[in-house]
Amino acid sequence: MAPTRIISCQVKDIRFPTSLEKDGSDAMNLAPDYSAPYIILRTDSDLEGHGVTFTVGKGNEIVCHAVRVLSQMVVNKELDYIYNNFGTFWRSLTSEDQMRWLGPEKGVMHLAVAAIINALWDLWAKIEGKPLWKLLVDMEPEILVSTIDFRYMSNVLSKDEALAILKKMQAGKSERENNLKSTGYPAYTTSVGWLGYDDVKLRRLCKEALAEGFTRFKAKVGADLADDKRRLTIIREEVGQDKMLLVDANQRWEVQEAIDWMKELAQFNLTWIEEPTSPDDILGHAQIAKELNPLGIGVATGEQCQNRIMFKQFLQANALQFCQIDSCRLGGVNENLAVILMASKYGVPICPHGGGVGLCELIQHLSIFDYIAVSGSLDKRVVEYVDHLHENFLHPTVVKNGSYQLPQAPGYSVQMKESSLISNEWPNGAVWKKLIQDGVYTNPVI
Amino acid sequence: MAPTRIISCQVKDIRFPTSLEKDGSDAMNLAPDYSAPYIILRTDSDLEGHGVTFTVGKGNEIVCHAVRVLSQMVVNKELDYIYNNFGTFWRSLTSEDQMRWLGPEKGVMHLAVAAIINALWDLWAKIEGKPLWKLLVDMEPEILVSTIDFRYMSNVLSKDEALAILKKMQAGKSERENNLKSTGYPAYTTSVGWLGYDDVKLRRLCKEALAEGFTRFKAKVGADLADDKRRLTIIREEVGQDKMLLVDANQRWEVQEAIDWMKELAQFNLTWIEEPTSPDDILGHAQIAKELNPLGIGVATGEQCQNRIMFKQFLQANALQFCQIDSCRLGGVNENLAVILMASKYGVPICPHGGGVGLCELIQHLSIFDYIAVSGSLDKRVVEYVDHLHENFLHPTVVKNGSYQLPQAPGYSVQMKESSLISNEWPNGAVWKKLIQDGVYTNPVI
Repeated sequence: MAPTRIISCQVKDIRFPTSLEKDGSDAMNLAPDYSAPYIILRTDSDLEGHGVTFTVGKGNEIVCHAVRVLSQMVVNKELDYIYNNFGTFWRSLTSEDQMRWLGPEKGVMHLAVAAIINALWDLWAKIEGKPLWKLLVDMEPEILVSTIDFRYMSNVLSKDEALAILKKMQAGKSERENNLKSTGYPAYTTSVGWLGYDDVKLRRLCKEALAEGFTRFKAKVGADLADDKRRLTIIREEVGQDKMLLVDANQRWEVQEAIDWMKELAQFNLTWIEEPTSPDDILGHAQIAKELNPLGIGVATGEQCQNRIMFKQFLQANALQFCQIDSCRLGGVNENLAVILMASKYGVPICPHGGGVGLCELIQHLSIFDYIAVSGSLDKRVVEYVDHLHENFLHPTVVKNGSYQLPQAPGYSVQMKESSLISNEWPNGAVWKKLIQDGVYTNPVI
Repeated sequence: MAPTRIISCQVKDIRFPTSLEKDGSDAMNLAPDYSAPYIILRTDSDLEGHGVTFTVGKGNEIVCHAVRVLSQMVVNKELDYIYNNFGTFWRSLTSEDQMRWLGPEKGVMHLAVAAIINALWDLWAKIEGKPLWKLLVDMEPEILVSTIDFRYMSNVLSKDEALAILKKMQAGKSERENNLKSTGYPAYTTSVGWLGYDDVKLRRLCKEALAEGFTRFKAKVGADLADDKRRLTIIREEVGQDKMLLVDANQRWEVQEAIDWMKELAQFNLTWIEEPTSPDDILGHAQIAKELNPLGIGVATGEQCQNRIMFKQFLQANALQFCQIDSCRLGGVNENLAVILMASKYGVPICPHGGGVGLCELIQHLSIFDYIAVSGSLDKRVVEYVDHLHENFLHPTVVKNGSYQLPQAPGYSVQMKESSLISNEWPNGAVWKKLIQDGVYTNPVI
């Protein structure tokens, strides 16, 4: 029997003690514990929709709490009501007239929206028996644009323009789908580039990444200029001069500081500088982009870009040359579609933010859809890959020869293994119970 | 004995059933229940710091929860540690490396920061035995700038520039203080202008406001053009052509829609259009401002402007002509000081957002400080006044002849009466218990 309505929404506070390894540390995120508010939408059939958003530890329970509040607007809703007017339903979650004050459309509330919305798309794809990218690719353009809330976008992209982009790209879809099936979607690896690695470790990681087939690499910068030069020198020595090399400052700099610092690093032939300053500073990014353009360096940002309205302005102001959508920062798939279509209008490549826990599993679907149904191009397009925590997923990403292989299982690849959900639930799962007992973590009573 | 450290942080979920009256309704906020996460910081002396932030009902408990998480970074801290490096302490709250992911510096987390920070300023002012405005006015410029986090502001305002502004305005401070003591600070009233009032009620309210001494008025617009014209016609008939008349669309419009609509309303001699579109759309506001400038209409926004980085860009882009700081949306007094100083550099008048519960009590202090110590001018400067819920405060605002009278009691005027705190606590205070028993409200189990 096909499901007809949502009957419950369960929220789990899932965390991984990644700060003990320090691999995910950068200039701004000193010791993240990759975490996910994890949602299970149950229906009146056996099918479930699973969804996540992403945090880096403390405060994960604040988002879980926000999900519980929002879930009252989802439970007992008919699926026809949701999916037949998905853009309208999306707005009902993001713009509930009292809760809108807490954003609007940003921060904790928007992360919570993302978790719920992602679960609804996982469910939809499972109902259709397709991986999410295929659901999107096969969707009639009229249906696809009906999932988008165009409010505050009309001065840049109207519904009709979005429709025209999608219709124009209907031709050649199956050819592009076949292309990707044979080659996969280009990935880059961030594994070589964390701060604080010594020369020996860095050379070893570069060699390993090359051996795995990666040809695109990202390094963290911004804490110490001399150390950045040391690490970039080694990476270039190991991978050669022709490979794509990206750098990421994680919001460390003031505007002028970003410009000055990057002029020092331009000798390393860098494709982009990611998050040079505050994610809110559109005009600052525009100035940085303008100054670095003659050096062949573009600006990339987006993992903390709060919504489509900010992305709209980044595009209007030429403030980004690489658009790093985030599956869990924006309000789920619907808003990601909006940004993908706006970026297409500006000819700006989509290069999603990966890493954390589950982000790679989700974003691959969005880039695959982008190539097949919107941009039609792989030029300058790369998806981040970080080899973290994939073992916790039922259908983890498969990356071969530096490329994401197309997901096959129905859904959004978001579902975690039951064993991981049990052992990593905060604070009473076995993993956390032991760490708290051992005094490695404390669980403050809130 | 003077207090030396914070020993506890209590959070209360305080709400008022204002939606039953519908007086606060506008084009976007259909039925707000004015609410406050209410903070009591207790010390090792009898002195307490009280603080609030503001929400419109549902989700107030999400912010309360966020306050509880953040309060772990405040409890047991020495006051010297906090106040001697207040800018640094402020950053420790807004940029804790794991919780920063949930914003950064926006939405739920930033509202929670505001509540705590406001309580710390209330305490500081009580320790000094002064109302907050006087604490700020008397403060050495070097101390005052030490409370500000200048991160992401340096391309517009450096610490040295801020210091220079304050030092320059030291001369004449006591004269300006005496001016305000005799005249009060200019207010405008929003009471005449809510949507949905019929002709008779509107004329009565205008007459009453004139009789109370108001000469500046604000009306809500944006739901229906014909109805806007009807109400503005009546208001102009009642108050005359020369009085200041402001309109507020509460984010109702797309960019071009705002321009077209306001051209229709320009005949009413309007000083500003407030929140014409999304609060995140800096470039959209800039375009609206450019188009409306020849009509003599400025753009006002800020009550949902998330932080100093957004205000910085609104100023850089000439996207606002009236800067509506909010005591509870920005991260408390410290960040309001940052924005006041940036606005001063651009010559943009500060016109704070009032209303809700407690906002008027707080913002008066900021505008009084602005006049005496920063801008030195009352030209185009007005503070919003809404006659709501003041009876719940120990030291409510006093508005006479359309002007705020200077607060005298030590502190930030934020403290509510014990009886109000008891009866209005959600969901078990007497007010709510009865409404829930009567079936007027439900208290969903989260």
